[in-house]
Amino acid sequence: MKVDGRPMRTIWLNEDGSSVDIIDQTRFPFEFEIVTLKSVDDAARAIREMLVRGAPLIGATAAYGICLQTLVDPGDVGLDAASEQLAATRPTAINLKWALDEMAKCLKPLAVEERRAAAYARAAEICDEDVEINRNIGLNGLPIIREIASKKASGEPVNILTHCNAGWLATVDWGTATAPIYMAYEEGIDVHVWVDETRPRNQGASLTAWELGKHGVPHTLIVDNVGGHLMQHGMVDMVITGTDRTTANGDVCNKIGTYLKALAAADNGVPFYVGLPSPTIDFTLSDGVAEVPIELRDGTEVSVLRGRKDDGGLESIAISPDATPVANYAFDVTPARLVTGLITERGVLEANREAIAAAFPERVVK
Amino acid sequence: MKVDGRPMRTIWLNEDGSSVDIIDQTRFPFEFEIVTLKSVDDAARAIREMLVRGAPLIGATAAYGICLQTLVDPGDVGLDAASEQLAATRPTAINLKWALDEMAKCLKPLAVEERRAAAYARAAEICDEDVEINRNIGLNGLPIIREIASKKASGEPVNILTHCNAGWLATVDWGTATAPIYMAYEEGIDVHVWVDETRPRNQGASLTAWELGKHGVPHTLIVDNVGGHLMQHGMVDMVITGTDRTTANGDVCNKIGTYLKALAAADNGVPFYVGLPSPTIDFTLSDGVAEVPIELRDGTEVSVLRGRKDDGGLESIAISPDATPVANYAFDVTPARLVTGLITERGVLEANREAIAAAFPERVVK
Repeated sequence: MKVDGRPMRTIWLNEDGSSVDIIDQTRFPFEFEIVTLKSVDDAARAIREMLVRGAPLIGATAAYGICLQTLVDPGDVGLDAASEQLAATRPTAINLKWALDEMAKCLKPLAVEERRAAAYARAAEICDEDVEINRNIGLNGLPIIREIASKKASGEPVNILTHCNAGWLATVDWGTATAPIYMAYEEGIDVHVWVDETRPRNQGASLTAWELGKHGVPHTLIVDNVGGHLMQHGMVDMVITGTDRTTANGDVCNKIGTYLKALAAADNGVPFYVGLPSPTIDFTLSDGVAEVPIELRDGTEVSVLRGRKDDGGLESIAISPDATPVANYAFDVTPARLVTGLITERGVLEANREAIAAAFPERVVK
Repeated sequence: MKVDGRPMRTIWLNEDGSSVDIIDQTRFPFEFEIVTLKSVDDAARAIREMLVRGAPLIGATAAYGICLQTLVDPGDVGLDAASEQLAATRPTAINLKWALDEMAKCLKPLAVEERRAAAYARAAEICDEDVEINRNIGLNGLPIIREIASKKASGEPVNILTHCNAGWLATVDWGTATAPIYMAYEEGIDVHVWVDETRPRNQGASLTAWELGKHGVPHTLIVDNVGGHLMQHGMVDMVITGTDRTTANGDVCNKIGTYLKALAAADNGVPFYVGLPSPTIDFTLSDGVAEVPIELRDGTEVSVLRGRKDDGGLESIAISPDATPVANYAFDVTPARLVTGLITERGVLEANREAIAAAFPERVVK
């Protein structure tokens, strides 16, 4: 999407044909800095230190990490070492493992001298495939927004609430939850986004607010407590969130707090949609609440916040008594019964086993 | 309640019989400082600058402000001026106006030389009346906790979730939502409190966590997004919140985000109680969502946070891009249908017009 009018992706090949640029997302929302990756070490550090985040972008960065390795040693030993190094950076990231496997599958059968060109071609493909999935999520979600807009009085925006960041910054471009929103905005539909702060890591306040602002999409930051009140008063027309993992029956595991917004949407007749790239569907699971393990992260993410002082410097501050115990659950599960529709790259699906299986028959686990 | 073993109230008369001590709540949770009020100016500043907060405590401080005025000028002109000065500190605080009216009603009929003693007596009464209301809320709520405890396996605590601070720090003592919890703890029941952070002003993280910790009640701080997940997994036995205003039919206006917890409680069969001092019932209102105006506060409460740096100094930091618009709704309304019971000083009531009217027949508006 655009940053102050300039179209960008989150990762791109430089004109030298070898080095790769990324946006350093650790400095958001206060500093916008582009970092150049020139070695597999650079790529590993970018993933490990979360300069890049979001499953698709992590996968793309790992793929380019393998490309950078081919510049110095495209042999089997070198590729295996690079792959191991990259895989160890964020061991639980499924896309990371997937992208590295794809690269190995592509390169290993080739002669060593052919690997460099093939690696760059496959990495570019992995990026383009992600963009294409998200673009199709956008195209499939757009008619929902158009329909709401058609019923609005002139001058009244379509109000969309989102939680966390499932935006272009988490992908290569478009984002998942944000793709329909960006497409509606580009089409000239009057949209306005309520941006949940998304405690504890504040991805809404720092990432979603930043990217919507830079692209020019009207939005307002709210704390996570506000959405229910807005829905009670007719101030939300639809909710769109992302998902980290979706079960075969349509239960949606996403950032902690998503479930509370889904409850409020159901209580107020507000449609609740999930932007769902099909790689995040786990066809082996049938009951999200019972089966998806929820990560319990470090409590300092809750008790310590980072931000900018008046003098422009970044600072971390504690907000609770030192002695206070903290529990930091990272995700929750929204049961399928609360989900109006899953906006996938193959269409908008009802959140149930039959509809999901019909759209992705090749992936159904018997 | 206790602070490191020492029993305290939030406001008390000193041994000199004239000056009044309060706890400076603006420095929570990092510093505990007692401030002495010696003049009506001191009392007005304490209310205006929020050294004291919470409706009952604001009322008590205003009453003592009038006492301090009687030390220098107990005549009608002096009392009226003091009353006006105090009333202007937080114009929307209903208890402030009520306490000042009570003091005037008590003092104006008296000879000037009798007013000082009468003022101190009435101010002490106002404090004791608040303590008595809260103590009775505690006594009425205690059997609910006892009942849950009786069904627990040995060693399993009763898990209670609370939102914001309706604790002793917001009242003269006991608190409203916390009174049953403190009583259960004092009785030896194994209780554990999930403390919602309560963005944007973080009264949970700074006040509730502090007071429970200082009294010794086991508790864990969570972000506001977590409660639904905990309830899905059987980790919450009951919710108790406070209320700022309750309608004649039992709709509860409380800190923003309360409604989301009530929805999650209903969805998971968790009882949702409200600690309700009857002065907060507004018998003129019948539909909370439609009739209670919701305060829209300054956006910097959302975008700027205050806390403690590593070096111990306090610092304010911005957490969102400077250009990001913010909407800061302060309260929401939980419809009566989601409330299991109202724990009042006259017993636990169903949240409906008939039950509330039967308990407080003298206040029903025809």
